[in-house]
Amino acid sequence: MSKAPDSILRRLKVRRQKQRTILAMRWRCAKGGKEFKELDTFYRAIRPYLCVAQLFGIMPLSNVLSRDPQDVKFRLRSVGMCFTGLFLLLGGIKTVMQANILFRTGLNAKNMMNLVFLIVGIVNWLNFTGFARSWSKLILPWSSLDILMQFAPYAPSKHSLRSKLRLIGCVVGSLAVVDHLLYYASGYYSYHMHIFHCHTNHSRLSFGSYLEKEFSETFELLPYNMFSVCYGFWLNAAFTFLWNFMDIFIVLTSISLAQRFRQFADRVLALQGRQVPDTLWYDIRRDHIRLCELASLVDESMSNIVLMSCANNVYVICNQALAIFTKLRHPINYVYFWYSLLFLLARTSLVFMSASKIHDASLLPLRTLYLVPSTHWTEEVQRFVSQLTSEFVGLSGYRLFYLTRKSLFGMMATLVTYELMLLQMDAKSHKAGLPDLCA
Amino acid sequence: MSKAPDSILRRLKVRRQKQRTILAMRWRCAKGGKEFKELDTFYRAIRPYLCVAQLFGIMPLSNVLSRDPQDVKFRLRSVGMCFTGLFLLLGGIKTVMQANILFRTGLNAKNMMNLVFLIVGIVNWLNFTGFARSWSKLILPWSSLDILMQFAPYAPSKHSLRSKLRLIGCVVGSLAVVDHLLYYASGYYSYHMHIFHCHTNHSRLSFGSYLEKEFSETFELLPYNMFSVCYGFWLNAAFTFLWNFMDIFIVLTSISLAQRFRQFADRVLALQGRQVPDTLWYDIRRDHIRLCELASLVDESMSNIVLMSCANNVYVICNQALAIFTKLRHPINYVYFWYSLLFLLARTSLVFMSASKIHDASLLPLRTLYLVPSTHWTEEVQRFVSQLTSEFVGLSGYRLFYLTRKSLFGMMATLVTYELMLLQMDAKSHKAGLPDLCA
Amino acid sequence: MSKAPDSILRRLKVRRQKQRTILAMRWRCAKGGKEFKELDTFYRAIRPYLCVAQLFGIMPLSNVLSRDPQDVKFRLRSVGMCFTGLFLLLGGIKTVMQANILFRTGLNAKNMMNLVFLIVGIVNWLNFTGFARSWSKLILPWSSLDILMQFAPYAPSKHSLRSKLRLIGCVVGSLAVVDHLLYYASGYYSYHMHIFHCHTNHSRLSFGSYLEKEFSETFELLPYNMFSVCYGFWLNAAFTFLWNFMDIFIVLTSISLAQRFRQFADRVLALQGRQVPDTLWYDIRRDHIRLCELASLVDESMSNIVLMSCANNVYVICNQALAIFTKLRHPINYVYFWYSLLFLLARTSLVFMSASKIHDASLLPLRTLYLVPSTHWTEEVQRFVSQLTSEFVGLSGYRLFYLTRKSLFGMMATLVTYELMLLQMDAKSHKAGLPDLCA
Amino acid sequence: MSKAPDSILRRLKVRRQKQRTILAMRWRCAKGGKEFKELDTFYRAIRPYLCVAQLFGIMPLSNVLSRDPQDVKFRLRSVGMCFTGLFLLLGGIKTVMQANILFRTGLNAKNMMNLVFLIVGIVNWLNFTGFARSWSKLILPWSSLDILMQFAPYAPSKHSLRSKLRLIGCVVGSLAVVDHLLYYASGYYSYHMHIFHCHTNHSRLSFGSYLEKEFSETFELLPYNMFSVCYGFWLNAAFTFLWNFMDIFIVLTSISLAQRFRQFADRVLALQGRQVPDTLWYDIRRDHIRLCELASLVDESMSNIVLMSCANNVYVICNQALAIFTKLRHPINYVYFWYSLLFLLARTSLVFMSASKIHDASLLPLRTLYLVPSTHWTEEVQRFVSQLTSEFVGLSGYRLFYLTRKSLFGMMATLVTYELMLLQMDAKSHKAGLPDLCA
Repeated sequence: MSKAPDSILRRLKVRRQKQRTILAMRWRCAKGGKEFKELDTFYRAIRPYLCVAQLFGIMPLSNVLSRDPQDVKFRLRSVGMCFTGLFLLLGGIKTVMQANILFRTGLNAKNMMNLVFLIVGIVNWLNFTGFARSWSKLILPWSSLDILMQFAPYAPSKHSLRSKLRLIGCVVGSLAVVDHLLYYASGYYSYHMHIFHCHTNHSRLSFGSYLEKEFSETFELLPYNMFSVCYGFWLNAAFTFLWNFMDIFIVLTSISLAQRFRQFADRVLALQGRQVPDTLWYDIRRDHIRLCELASLVDESMSNIVLMSCANNVYVICNQALAIFTKLRHPINYVYFWYSLLFLLARTSLVFMSASKIHDASLLPLRTLYLVPSTHWTEEVQRFVSQLTSEFVGLSGYRLFYLTRKSLFGMMATLVTYELMLLQMDAKSHKAGLPDLCA
Repeated sequence: MSKAPDSILRRLKVRRQKQRTILAMRWRCAKGGKEFKELDTFYRAIRPYLCVAQLFGIMPLSNVLSRDPQDVKFRLRSVGMCFTGLFLLLGGIKTVMQANILFRTGLNAKNMMNLVFLIVGIVNWLNFTGFARSWSKLILPWSSLDILMQFAPYAPSKHSLRSKLRLIGCVVGSLAVVDHLLYYASGYYSYHMHIFHCHTNHSRLSFGSYLEKEFSETFELLPYNMFSVCYGFWLNAAFTFLWNFMDIFIVLTSISLAQRFRQFADRVLALQGRQVPDTLWYDIRRDHIRLCELASLVDESMSNIVLMSCANNVYVICNQALAIFTKLRHPINYVYFWYSLLFLLARTSLVFMSASKIHDASLLPLRTLYLVPSTHWTEEVQRFVSQLTSEFVGLSGYRLFYLTRKSLFGMMATLVTYELMLLQMDAKSHKAGLPDLCA
Repeated sequence: MSKAPDSILRRLKVRRQKQRTILAMRWRCAKGGKEFKELDTFYRAIRPYLCVAQLFGIMPLSNVLSRDPQDVKFRLRSVGMCFTGLFLLLGGIKTVMQANILFRTGLNAKNMMNLVFLIVGIVNWLNFTGFARSWSKLILPWSSLDILMQFAPYAPSKHSLRSKLRLIGCVVGSLAVVDHLLYYASGYYSYHMHIFHCHTNHSRLSFGSYLEKEFSETFELLPYNMFSVCYGFWLNAAFTFLWNFMDIFIVLTSISLAQRFRQFADRVLALQGRQVPDTLWYDIRRDHIRLCELASLVDESMSNIVLMSCANNVYVICNQALAIFTKLRHPINYVYFWYSLLFLLARTSLVFMSASKIHDASLLPLRTLYLVPSTHWTEEVQRFVSQLTSEFVGLSGYRLFYLTRKSLFGMMATLVTYELMLLQMDAKSHKAGLPDLCA
Repeated sequence: MSKAPDSILRRLKVRRQKQRTILAMRWRCAKGGKEFKELDTFYRAIRPYLCVAQLFGIMPLSNVLSRDPQDVKFRLRSVGMCFTGLFLLLGGIKTVMQANILFRTGLNAKNMMNLVFLIVGIVNWLNFTGFARSWSKLILPWSSLDILMQFAPYAPSKHSLRSKLRLIGCVVGSLAVVDHLLYYASGYYSYHMHIFHCHTNHSRLSFGSYLEKEFSETFELLPYNMFSVCYGFWLNAAFTFLWNFMDIFIVLTSISLAQRFRQFADRVLALQGRQVPDTLWYDIRRDHIRLCELASLVDESMSNIVLMSCANNVYVICNQALAIFTKLRHPINYVYFWYSLLFLLARTSLVFMSASKIHDASLLPLRTLYLVPSTHWTEEVQRFVSQLTSEFVGLSGYRLFYLTRKSLFGMMATLVTYELMLLQMDAKSHKAGLPDLCA
């Protein structure tokens, strides 16, 4: 239906991509293969994450261990796709069984959350598989741009992209692991206390019995043994990993893009106070167009992931937010609840803030341009200024909303209003104490 | 009250329309009558839909079978107007009787929906009749622009407008038919089960008895026979058709307009890298002004239809949304409820997305213009850029709101907030099971 | 606190005002006093409304019967001010007594509306008195601009401003009178039925007894006689008149301003296709700046009236909106309720729509300017274009919000969401029937 | 993470700051030290407030009594820091004890407010300490700009900055003192009446016994004597002072910045009608860039204070707003409740309105520039216009939201909608009278 405009943009891009690939080739030849692999490219920085993702069947790419981005392609018949298929199958079974249980007991706003979590997971596996298909179309122009910006006149940034991405990935990743462990700890403690106080059969106090209850839908199909317990853990971990990976991936991509825009701004800043010929301005403007094209390519490819991530995060936050004043039984429950809510809020804010940095960085050259004295002010500079101000650069969810500070504020404001309203309604109704533990 | 500014715009347009009509004539003479009728014009693509609409008294135009848009005019004394009058009369009677029943039993938020559906239908018949009156003022400039854009320097698009419109019309149309059939199926099954379990008189199990209940307000005036059953079906179908037609019509119009803007962008793209004289830029800019004038003419003529369509869709979605957690008795009821809700959501999104494509397409030439080298950069190009960025091109509901992705997002966000609030209120109140079937 | 920027603007304006007054003088001398008074100026069109307003102590101006705007000034010691003082005193007493009654019985969301109505009235009298003080600063530049635009090169508009304003004033005024009469009719009928069914003393069935109850707070101070009944009617009428006058005044002012912008656009349109020298463009641009300055002067002077009008209308609409599903006892109650709600909605929409026409009209010259061929395109034209697009022209409530179609839509959308939420809450609670008539 | 772009801006600023400091030095040498201290600088106007703030440990700066802004620096080992540390310690203890009490009795929406008030206080002490650290980076460029704008070609403003700031500070300060006194009066009166009617032991009627209850968490640690009562008063006053200081500080800063922009606009206005060489325009534009840089430096340094201030004010307003229809027992309670609510609303509006004046003032030169005749219209003027319109100048909360009239309106609108919704919910539930006084 909308093929025509895409075709225009695509033709424009294909033409440019070819130029870029040739450029990339030329660079590589001149510099030797080895040097290339040690450049601070986005591919090199993101590769470890892609490798880990393979283990959970996310973004099935072949040759992901290779250091050359040209080798990494999506292939239908590959090990990665097998993994993805396996996860889709097993996740699908889990989802169907969970749905079955829910529909039997009656679906409501509370227990729906578990099901939504699973469905979102399945959709995300599909989204990432779709993204993997367009990966080579994205990484080649990006890599050639990366290579271009490793050398003069672009100055390298103080901290390498790789170290930045590693730092963020590790911090968020460890927090996510703690979150996941707290989930089991909180669940097991509640189970333990329940059995201890209400049942006489204390043989069921063990962690194993807890798992039997936790992974009940698994044990409807499989016998209870070491293997099936591991299977339960592993599938649960995969869904949790996917949820976190989605957000982290958006953050890492945003940071990498923003870095390139900042380098670009640095280059423009270096020209301050100098006599700049029009041809140089034209070159700079071309580079800016390339950067913008890359940004819009990334935006286009990741739109569904961004949309899913934001929708899911907002949904979970809303659901958690209503439980703020619910009385919980054990301290560990409180710890898990607040840790998980705050972690989620922080992660969502991080996604918005990193993505908004792309736009902020894209506007940095403006200040320098305002200071160009009128003797050096030419039409090229003016066009550059109007180009900088006219277009929005950044990530979006199908352009339905943009990841900006303003959107984050709007989201938070709506959330707070909603929460206030609920609190008020809560204050009216009589607050019952905790229900009987053994009821 | 606001005649003066309209008069300015109208004078501008009248002048331009004359030029266009002359142009159109010239083309036709040069090419021969037959060829003209085979051009891929909007009129040719939309004509089948207009013909079908005639059967339901929508958009009463005379000579709608003619292939020449100049023959198709609104006439007060025509067969189409008789049909429209008939529908208005019968629909009016149905509405009055329904209103009568409701006021007797007490109007509330739930049963009001049926009445609103009928009233909106009546208003839409009037709206479309108003649109038919201005049809010839719209289709003539559009057709001449269509003709202009069939030939060089404009390239034809890969898929003809006609095939696109046919595809979309068929898909949405079939889905609507399924929706309508499910309505009867769901209603009949509920009726059947009710009679079967609660009444001893099983002679009333037939489909006929169901219809007697379904069209009860018809049978207050008419005796029960084959003819009056058909009449009931037919009037119901007419209202449903009108509701769907309204949305489909907006979608088809939007796609057609967007296509022209895309062709225009293609033409500008073709100039990339060439030395373009100022006179050519001026010609291109003139064509752009013509396209924008056509778009604003369409916007003006269809504003009331757009406003009505959006208001009605949002109202129905809100009403359906509150029933999401209501327990239904039979699986067929679930199927109908969810199918109809999802179909409505998809249709509404389609309306917004197609209409937003007009604006997106109108901005496509910008990219090409940014790449014009400074040696070829003249005042004409600059004016073209500022013209492209300054005005909003697209459909709106009386300019109170514009059909854009952002509006769609705002609407969806409000809907979700609203739904969340209701869910929360629902969770508080005790959920009763299903009431007794025979109560 | 904010005197400095105002002083800048004021100096600019004072300078310009002097020029204008001189110009006006010159025109008048050349044309003769009589002819001047027959020009289609805003002053001449609004004068009848000002005269009527004097009767209710609104906008106390001396010499309001004079046809020369220079004679009309605000004087502290004048008949008008006496009237205003009288109304403020009597209205103040009424308000205090009403407040007293309410605080005794307990203030709540429902009975507060009456009090708010009275307080808003008092505030509006003060607002209009403040506006009267700045009236001569406003009407002199406006009148000289009006005079300027009566003659070539400005073409007169088809319908005179005077006839337009008279038409709108009469229509809205009559609807308001009907609204006021229905208020008494509905009140009296309810009273009548109540006495008839629940009391044996049928001597109290008369209209007089109803008034005794209606104006109870008056009869706490005054004895019951013909005079005090008239006094009650008159004070009630004054508050109602003020409320309607506020809206009508904004509408009339907006229409008059919009008309001038349209005339201006007509003049620019007339230049289309001609060779226009830069000096003429500069003259046109100067006139545009004058019009914008007038518009911003009007906006500044009327900001508090606009703010009060919108806040009050929205408050009353919200309050009425919650009562939509309340069962009323008599048909006349329904008629009054719906008539008054629809009238209020229509009036509020009219305020927003008329005011938004100012902005729409101010953008009309753009279309013409886009068609200026590049050979005639000079810096002056470009500056004109950027001037037209850069600033917002229209009315606002202290620039907290602007009277535009978008604001109207936002307001309506919020209202509808709010209403939907209430309906939902209503549907949950059990609907009791009407309470006992005589309880 | 976001060091790179900051570094660009910082380098730009550092370079400029040096120039400015040199300039400032030069001025001072030429004029003599004494004269410098009598210039109407921001530092001189804000100094008294900083001195008072020291007493409460806010913004710990050393040498704050000095008249030379270069002497005032943040030092870790200083008397101010000791004070701050003391307040943080004592405030922290109070907060922890309050939290302890709350968690014991059960946290809910109502009693949470007290705790939030204390936590916000602690966070603000830290925020202001952070701000003190960057104070010298802010005040030096500001002072040199202030000095620059004391002399020709800049005209002094009619009212000195110092007198303006003193006036506003005194008015808001006294209102705050009244608010604080009313708090004790209202509390004591309620306590008095409660003891009088419900206890026989009338020895506890004294003010001392009230304080014992009011500062109960203090007397858990300290014995009851004159000293500990003073301590209780003083700590309470410190928190209240901090809350008010936060708002007043934003207001004062905004007014000072807006004043400079107005002076700048005055200078541009003075050029009207004259032949201005391009070099002068360039100088003016440079000054504008300096002003904008100062504004963005202020915005950056104060973002966390602005965010905290707005979030806290909105939270307290929302909380108070729900209690509007709660019945209170004594007239003094009503007086305190309404005084404190209106004072808070006025203060919040003042913050938004003053901050929005910065932006308004920054746009003032536009009017003058539109009137530059085309013979004097050069590229410099055009760049100035585009510079003025392109960037937002003003304060923000981490750019999540901007302090503008529009934001204020949005906030107020949300608040009103929220309030209306609550009122409606209130109207539904049965209103109980006052609970028994002695319960």
